[in-house]
Amino acid sequence: MTLREDAINLHRMLKGKIEIRSRVSLGNTAEEQGTLGLIYTPGVAYVALEIGKNKKFVYDYTSRWNNVAIICDGTRVLGLGNIGPEAALPIMEGKSVLFKALGDINAIPLCIDSQDKEEIIRFVKMIQPNFGAINIEDIESPKVLEIVEELTKELSIPVFHDDQHGTAIITLAALINALKLVKKELGKVRVIISGSGSAGYGIFKILQAAGCKDIIVTDTKGAIFDGRIDIDNQNPYKMEISINTNFRKMSGTLTEVIRKSDVFIGVSGKSSILNKQMIESMNKNAIVFALSNPDPEIIPNKALEYGATIVATGRSDFSNQINNAVVFPSVFRALLDLRANNLSEFMLVSVARAIASIVEDIHLRNDYIIPKVDDPRILPIVTKTIKRMLRKHIKKTILSGHIEN
Amino acid sequence: MTLREDAINLHRMLKGKIEIRSRVSLGNTAEEQGTLGLIYTPGVAYVALEIGKNKKFVYDYTSRWNNVAIICDGTRVLGLGNIGPEAALPIMEGKSVLFKALGDINAIPLCIDSQDKEEIIRFVKMIQPNFGAINIEDIESPKVLEIVEELTKELSIPVFHDDQHGTAIITLAALINALKLVKKELGKVRVIISGSGSAGYGIFKILQAAGCKDIIVTDTKGAIFDGRIDIDNQNPYKMEISINTNFRKMSGTLTEVIRKSDVFIGVSGKSSILNKQMIESMNKNAIVFALSNPDPEIIPNKALEYGATIVATGRSDFSNQINNAVVFPSVFRALLDLRANNLSEFMLVSVARAIASIVEDIHLRNDYIIPKVDDPRILPIVTKTIKRMLRKHIKKTILSGHIEN
Repeated sequence: MTLREDAINLHRMLKGKIEIRSRVSLGNTAEEQGTLGLIYTPGVAYVALEIGKNKKFVYDYTSRWNNVAIICDGTRVLGLGNIGPEAALPIMEGKSVLFKALGDINAIPLCIDSQDKEEIIRFVKMIQPNFGAINIEDIESPKVLEIVEELTKELSIPVFHDDQHGTAIITLAALINALKLVKKELGKVRVIISGSGSAGYGIFKILQAAGCKDIIVTDTKGAIFDGRIDIDNQNPYKMEISINTNFRKMSGTLTEVIRKSDVFIGVSGKSSILNKQMIESMNKNAIVFALSNPDPEIIPNKALEYGATIVATGRSDFSNQINNAVVFPSVFRALLDLRANNLSEFMLVSVARAIASIVEDIHLRNDYIIPKVDDPRILPIVTKTIKRMLRKHIKKTILSGHIEN
Repeated sequence: MTLREDAINLHRMLKGKIEIRSRVSLGNTAEEQGTLGLIYTPGVAYVALEIGKNKKFVYDYTSRWNNVAIICDGTRVLGLGNIGPEAALPIMEGKSVLFKALGDINAIPLCIDSQDKEEIIRFVKMIQPNFGAINIEDIESPKVLEIVEELTKELSIPVFHDDQHGTAIITLAALINALKLVKKELGKVRVIISGSGSAGYGIFKILQAAGCKDIIVTDTKGAIFDGRIDIDNQNPYKMEISINTNFRKMSGTLTEVIRKSDVFIGVSGKSSILNKQMIESMNKNAIVFALSNPDPEIIPNKALEYGATIVATGRSDFSNQINNAVVFPSVFRALLDLRANNLSEFMLVSVARAIASIVEDIHLRNDYIIPKVDDPRILPIVTKTIKRMLRKHIKKTILSGHIEN
């Protein structure tokens, strides 16, 4: 049986990977039968009236505190492109399984039949009353970056964009440990990011916040630099990258700019774009994160054979899997439990450092730079970190005279 | 402890009456660990591609076939009025519990933060890819009737409006059995419906389809009749009522028109509007359904004392509870299983007759005219009825030369 057949057969057998479970029994005992009059009319009317008077009670009397919406419009499903909301549904159900297994969170897939930016923003605003947080997933870039920016401003609940924020956190965590092994400093290495979509933009932002000074981002036209003729404010995110990276304004293809770099991070969506000559042209002790799924920018054993010292991919069948699932369940658990708002770029950096610290120095190896998805130490350390950062933030806000409520 | 305290305490303890449950285990055995690669990347990509090629597969590979969205905008929550989407959430979670317990259906509450008709219609269209059917709930009338009409036309999945269709079915079922007991015929009795909202409109429609010829609907201004000065096409549903009922154009208050009627059906949202004189003015063997919740149009023992023969309410603490929960789980189960489209008015009548038939003649009593919510005979008889009606419909369509796919 192939992977394809196994996956299709399992899905056909399950007919849905998630379901609704009732947390109350309406059984046969007198007490259980009395429950119906409490959870439904007439009793529930009193609960509704309490919430009507003070909306905050919705967090105490319903599951809102533990509900997350997974929003996708089907335009950029995995690496498969614009295959529609129905096709995205099995992936979002799989994501919901991970939310439950790793964070004990109720994540509801909502794959929506609209690809219009304004409609998607309005849609998410409309569902806000039911959810404690929003997860944006597999929407095409740069549209999705605008959606996330707008929702972050306008919603009162946190918005997390896993392709952007989740990928950034786990990539930085892996990079921190990889650099430790090769004894290089983040402030001194040159990093090439191949791909300027959600993941590329997110990684650029977190590396910048973490103190990385020499970043070059490439897209299909080669290196991005300030003044490149096709870059204008049609895409403000690419504009932002052009202004804040590649200060020597290097131009040229990936093959040209990868020369003398220390770190390659591939989020290009393209397979096998790295070859022998390119790896060999990198500095000594090169770090190669070939993260495109399912087919990475280079197969790990090839990269090692050509001279890279540390190699990671997004896949579970190679060592050093850089997987968002290490991040999002614990980040959402913390956001929900702390009723936090959105995370700042500096909070993302702190979470990455915390996750990196889980792999202790004595256990660090070239093929073990990042904890496994189900490492039980992730959840407590992420929650602790976010809690500490929120306290700092509140303190700073109070000191500067602005007290938020 | 009062009902209010009991209900609030139970909700505070539960913190949510429903949750997501995963149907796959990602445990510790090698096989279970391999599951992750099938239900999520990389394996799930093949499933997504299959659905991308043919959208129908979404019913085979995801939970869509068994998912229902409960849509509410918080404008007419129970009898409590416009108290907002957050306040509606505990009721919709209670409804979801009933969907699961009585129909084994995954019903997802979506209480939306918009009261605009066009936005609500657009919203429901956008969520269609995730659901096998839509339940519309507790939205103000006549807006909701327009929403249901529009969605019924435009969606490819069935739309059921419980306040309208569910109430109509169970009321007709109860009336069929009540008339049997008093030996009167539906085609010959005069029925007064107090209230012209979703429930009143739905009951008028089903009674008309069932062959009832003498109906008078009253609203806050008294009897509705063709030509009443305030009735215009601002509210096409009231217009429809005015043209198809009260053919003798009786005007006047409820007190005036209830005289010499055989059946009173109260869906007015007002308590205690029936008095001794009004009941006494009805024909012999009067049937009184005082369905407003939580406070009926008249308390049952009063109605009986004043001379009514058969009395029913919407409440579980009196006999003859006319409760939508008898209807909606089995109707949705049948719609989902049969992948049926919307139900016609005649199909609603057939379902009502089928539910009425569950109470066999030898068991019929003035205080037992309708089966209990959890009667195990409901689900099979409703499914059988809808299946039979659909076959008839297909046969008729084929005979008339239009073959639907």
